[in-house]
Amino acid sequence: MDRDRILLTPGPLTTTLRTKLAMLKDWGSWDGDFIAVTAKVRAGLLDVVHGQDSHVVVPLQGSGTFSVEAAVATVVPREGHVLILDNGAYCKRAARLTQLMGRRATVLEFPEESPVSPQALEARLEADTSITHVILIHCETGTGVLNPLPEVAAVCEKRGKGLIVDAMSSFGALPIDCRSSRIDALIAASGKCLEGVPGMGFVLLRKAVLEQCAGNSQSLAMDLFDQYQYMEKTGQWRFTPPTHVLVALAEAMEQYREEGGQPARLARYVDNYQTLIAGMKALGLKPFLAPEVQAPIIVTFHAPQHPAYDFKRFYQAAKDRGFLLYPGKLTQVETFRVGCIGAIGRMEMQQAVNAVAEVLAEMGIAS
Amino acid sequence: MDRDRILLTPGPLTTTLRTKLAMLKDWGSWDGDFIAVTAKVRAGLLDVVHGQDSHVVVPLQGSGTFSVEAAVATVVPREGHVLILDNGAYCKRAARLTQLMGRRATVLEFPEESPVSPQALEARLEADTSITHVILIHCETGTGVLNPLPEVAAVCEKRGKGLIVDAMSSFGALPIDCRSSRIDALIAASGKCLEGVPGMGFVLLRKAVLEQCAGNSQSLAMDLFDQYQYMEKTGQWRFTPPTHVLVALAEAMEQYREEGGQPARLARYVDNYQTLIAGMKALGLKPFLAPEVQAPIIVTFHAPQHPAYDFKRFYQAAKDRGFLLYPGKLTQVETFRVGCIGAIGRMEMQQAVNAVAEVLAEMGIAS
Ligand SMILES: Cc1ncc(COP(=O)(O)O)c(C=O)c1O
Ligand SMILES: Cc1ncc(COP(=O)(O)O)c(C=O)c1O
Repeated sequence: MDRDRILLTPGPLTTTLRTKLAMLKDWGSWDGDFIAVTAKVRAGLLDVVHGQDSHVVVPLQGSGTFSVEAAVATVVPREGHVLILDNGAYCKRAARLTQLMGRRATVLEFPEESPVSPQALEARLEADTSITHVILIHCETGTGVLNPLPEVAAVCEKRGKGLIVDAMSSFGALPIDCRSSRIDALIAASGKCLEGVPGMGFVLLRKAVLEQCAGNSQSLAMDLFDQYQYMEKTGQWRFTPPTHVLVALAEAMEQYREEGGQPARLARYVDNYQTLIAGMKALGLKPFLAPEVQAPIIVTFHAPQHPAYDFKRFYQAAKDRGFLLYPGKLTQVETFRVGCIGAIGRMEMQQAVNAVAEVLAEMGIAS
Repeated sequence: MDRDRILLTPGPLTTTLRTKLAMLKDWGSWDGDFIAVTAKVRAGLLDVVHGQDSHVVVPLQGSGTFSVEAAVATVVPREGHVLILDNGAYCKRAARLTQLMGRRATVLEFPEESPVSPQALEARLEADTSITHVILIHCETGTGVLNPLPEVAAVCEKRGKGLIVDAMSSFGALPIDCRSSRIDALIAASGKCLEGVPGMGFVLLRKAVLEQCAGNSQSLAMDLFDQYQYMEKTGQWRFTPPTHVLVALAEAMEQYREEGGQPARLARYVDNYQTLIAGMKALGLKPFLAPEVQAPIIVTFHAPQHPAYDFKRFYQAAKDRGFLLYPGKLTQVETFRVGCIGAIGRMEMQQAVNAVAEVLAEMGIAS
């Protein structure tokens, strides 16, 4: 018996069979039928965040990080100066890729267990006027903390700074409104809260900054402006698209709309989150974050303070019972993570809690 | 009725149902089962070109171009000087991405209808000793011409130059032997002659140059050395892999071995090619290349010299009959292309020829 495991991971995640079935067909990337799928997905992504008037969508081959790097390379001019609001692992990665590509980068650090501070951002922008762009990670998946996007956007707009938002693990689930938050580049990927399969990212570029993006990128593959121009002209991707991944995303977005869009997706994830938290608390497992800063996307738990605990064993025992957990990403504290996203609901979360209860008992960890 | 069309394109191409069915499962990218698939694919790719002793395989998210760019960024030091042997569109793209990333690039041009010349290469290397690396496109898919890899490799080895080979459309079908041809970086992708779905590329890096690759790349996402090191340490990809694309490739490679590996794959493609050429010649359609320089991968045909000919109509009429053709990529001459690769055989090629015959008759183009 090799029944599929439930992925309690922040992408790749569990997708519906309907989404996967869409991949049972080969598509010519030059063909009109495929061009229509690309156009539909691009339009649908604008709808998710109310960007119809203000933004264009540029899909990009590769994982989410490729789209983050492409967004920075495309939006920030070579002599730009980027301030990264850092409260976790994905923030640090954004800083690293910015530096590597030769853009000036400054990191403003915050504790991992709290959101970044719009006040601290404003003070820094006041103190250093050479900063041209700000990078914010909307939901810092390393811990699961939710950062204050509208407030950060307001500060950036007031100060006339460009804003790049990595919404990888929040896009589609948490509300983002491009009409009220001014965002130059908003980044996410196929295999997260839209519940597609992994293999492509996308960036929403603000039309008002589009023309200034020409020639910024030193990478051909990651030049979103070039990709955008070609796509506008031909409807096609510049280089071979991940055809099966795109049609799966199109199918996943159809189900997203049928479910009721962002509010319904969020409601299901909140329900998953509450089921998880309540169940784990009853087992004596404590979340790392305070509830008021926690996004209902992924939860970091303290590892049980027990000599018999070992993540590898814990992981394998949970897997044997049908669930894939996720390791922690913190360096100071021993933790593990559980994702609340994917094509799963309360039933699966309760089953997962029950499995963890069994695992702890088997490992001799009293609860 | 919406029966699948046969893709006569150089990737994405027609894959088997068995390959696509492998995508009906979600995989945790951190999980041991997925790590095992990655390891198996990496080892299998070495086998294809006899690189077990000399090379390591680094898979990379994204389309083939991403892997070409990553190979150049990783293998060529920032002060390197790259000579691109140019006889077509993909050569020009390699030159462009090399230049964009800030590496010194020199182009040695050849006519599109002939292979690049190892003698001309040697003369150039003699004349300009500042050149450190050479880029060769093995099969230039823009026209379909086969370039002399063993001879070019011999010149590069003799002169002590690094060699980067884009074998995107030849890997798995045309013989490549890493024991006799010294290649620093050999690049291909999932969705070509291995008959997987598109979404990832891979680069075989020569072990002897591996250590010199550290720190060359200015891109985080495309740093193959970083990807390699992380993979060696953890078995995992650095960033979310296209899980479904990788398992489809693993399944496709299983079928590749069952078919008889490279010799069998080549024999089938040669048969496809001969069926195509014979059929099209009988219809009065002339190939652009002389047979002795033509790879059995993709064939460029002169468009019919007839006022009624129009590619869009021609394409649509062939599509209505079940076949997707490919536009030409030449700027001077009007052409179209027909791919010989993918999970198809003589039967499908003959059906395609029959469809083209009908189309020409319908369009009023006498044959
Ligand atoms: C906030 C955030 N940024 C970036 C990434 C990187 O995406 P990928 O692993 O697809 O490269 C992730 C992945 O989970 C993420 O959660
Ligand atoms: C020789 C060659 N190089 C590079 C590429 C680019 O690959 P991709 O379109 O996957 O980026 C192709 C695609 O057909 C190719 O044939």
